[in-house]
Amino acid sequence: MKITILGCYSATPRKDKHTSSQLLEINGSVFLIDCGEGTQMQLRKAKIKFNRLNDIFISHLHGDHFYGLIGLISTFRLTGRAKPLNIYGPKGIKEIITLQLKLANSWTNYTLNFHELTSNDSQTIYEKDNILVQTLPLDHRVYTNGFLFTSISSSRKINPTAIKELDLKPFHFDQLKKGFPIKLENGTKIKNNELTFDPEKPKKYAYCSDTSYNLNLIPLIKNIDLLYHESTFLEKDIDLAEKTKHSTATQAAKIAQKAKVKKLILGHYSSRYSDKNLFFKEASSIFKEVDLSEDFKTFLI
Amino acid sequence: MKITILGCYSATPRKDKHTSSQLLEINGSVFLIDCGEGTQMQLRKAKIKFNRLNDIFISHLHGDHFYGLIGLISTFRLTGRAKPLNIYGPKGIKEIITLQLKLANSWTNYTLNFHELTSNDSQTIYEKDNILVQTLPLDHRVYTNGFLFTSISSSRKINPTAIKELDLKPFHFDQLKKGFPIKLENGTKIKNNELTFDPEKPKKYAYCSDTSYNLNLIPLIKNIDLLYHESTFLEKDIDLAEKTKHSTATQAAKIAQKAKVKKLILGHYSSRYSDKNLFFKEASSIFKEVDLSEDFKTFLI
Repeated sequence: MKITILGCYSATPRKDKHTSSQLLEINGSVFLIDCGEGTQMQLRKAKIKFNRLNDIFISHLHGDHFYGLIGLISTFRLTGRAKPLNIYGPKGIKEIITLQLKLANSWTNYTLNFHELTSNDSQTIYEKDNILVQTLPLDHRVYTNGFLFTSISSSRKINPTAIKELDLKPFHFDQLKKGFPIKLENGTKIKNNELTFDPEKPKKYAYCSDTSYNLNLIPLIKNIDLLYHESTFLEKDIDLAEKTKHSTATQAAKIAQKAKVKKLILGHYSSRYSDKNLFFKEASSIFKEVDLSEDFKTFLI
Repeated sequence: MKITILGCYSATPRKDKHTSSQLLEINGSVFLIDCGEGTQMQLRKAKIKFNRLNDIFISHLHGDHFYGLIGLISTFRLTGRAKPLNIYGPKGIKEIITLQLKLANSWTNYTLNFHELTSNDSQTIYEKDNILVQTLPLDHRVYTNGFLFTSISSSRKINPTAIKELDLKPFHFDQLKKGFPIKLENGTKIKNNELTFDPEKPKKYAYCSDTSYNLNLIPLIKNIDLLYHESTFLEKDIDLAEKTKHSTATQAAKIAQKAKVKKLILGHYSSRYSDKNLFFKEASSIFKEVDLSEDFKTFLI
């Protein structure tokens, strides 16, 4: 899993600060998470080929998370996209996009599949190629979901020491990875678990923006590898965080700590703070494995 | 009149190429013409204070001319705007904007006045402080207007030679500028036109994007000071221009020539051409006073 931050600031885009958008690559699949104004330019700057994108996940209908979507959809049309595009987001997103396409008399020449979300419970909304996406209901001023991405490895790992003396053919390797026993040329049968280890543990990434301090998240993101949790404010402005249903860096760190995640990324910074390191300092005093998102920074799992 | 180009490319914004938007300053008034995605970042780069903007004119509802509008409106809200904002554009623009504000549960705390346009004839849509804005009906794939901005000087110009020997008080100057006769302290009456010249001729700027080759424009823009006319294509691609209802550089130059405008600016370039100078070469062979728009370039009348 590779996460590329395309934008990590809240509210309004500025000269060199972009609003929420992330690109997630899992094996060959590419997912876009949120799409603030100017995301298509950020994708170009990150040299991402538009055609690799098939699935876009929108957390909520505040502008800093989706005003770039209609532009991206239009650009896909103008650049000759033929294959379908899937859009997962709150109910209403289809109406907004189709109204704009209608008034511009510019229907896409590819299929737009809208998967509108309304549930307040966590749901599985994507399941393909050993990748699972589940919603993470968040608590914000409008209906909002985070997303949990799980990459499952079903392939058993071959034990190099155990096979060292054996003359295995390529088809033997395939059988072993799939969990089958093998039969050597001399007729010897060997059980699968004598030559393999269990598959790698699933890798898990959670994107949680925007939300107030929300303990309901804990069981849903327990022990995951990487958590992006918004930290719009510092703890000294907790009154603003509560009023606007956002989180502080302290609260993000507490969620990471309680959920025992392996690593936390902060983001969705308010532009009122000139120094991002204040978020790092505040969060790392509570939860050690913390890092700051920055436009174009990448994270690997 | 000062025109600042914020974006002059067609179709899709790219890394360093922005879609249509222009800022027009006339005395103290500031007008935004079209508002492609990312215009608010371009305004910040051009160091334009958002609060100076009261009137936005949208030519048509294709994305490269208005996808930045909802973001700008939201940013005005977040930056505490209190005074009303006037938006002039095709019917439908109000529905698009209000639907997005509704679904985001984020109504503006300032008044949005929509002036929706439907007429196929030229209309006066703004008249204030000696500035007049009239629509220029264009011929495109959807309902589209250009805009003609006229700055009228109603103030007569005082003839310095004629008043040289007279002991005039400040109120005499006011009376002369307004066209009244004056009475000196010794009782002598002097006619206004003995001491003044006629006011300066009105200054006129026309913005025409997007349109096919459209001779109906000629009488509306006759003899104006400056014409921005789209030139999406070169003449060798006239079939594409006709198909998409756009103009070539040659056609833009012919319009400028027939309308006897003082100067022509080209823009709305298709990204298929890597060298903008090809537009200049083509147009200048027909109409000499031509210039190329470029992001952040300014033009004075």
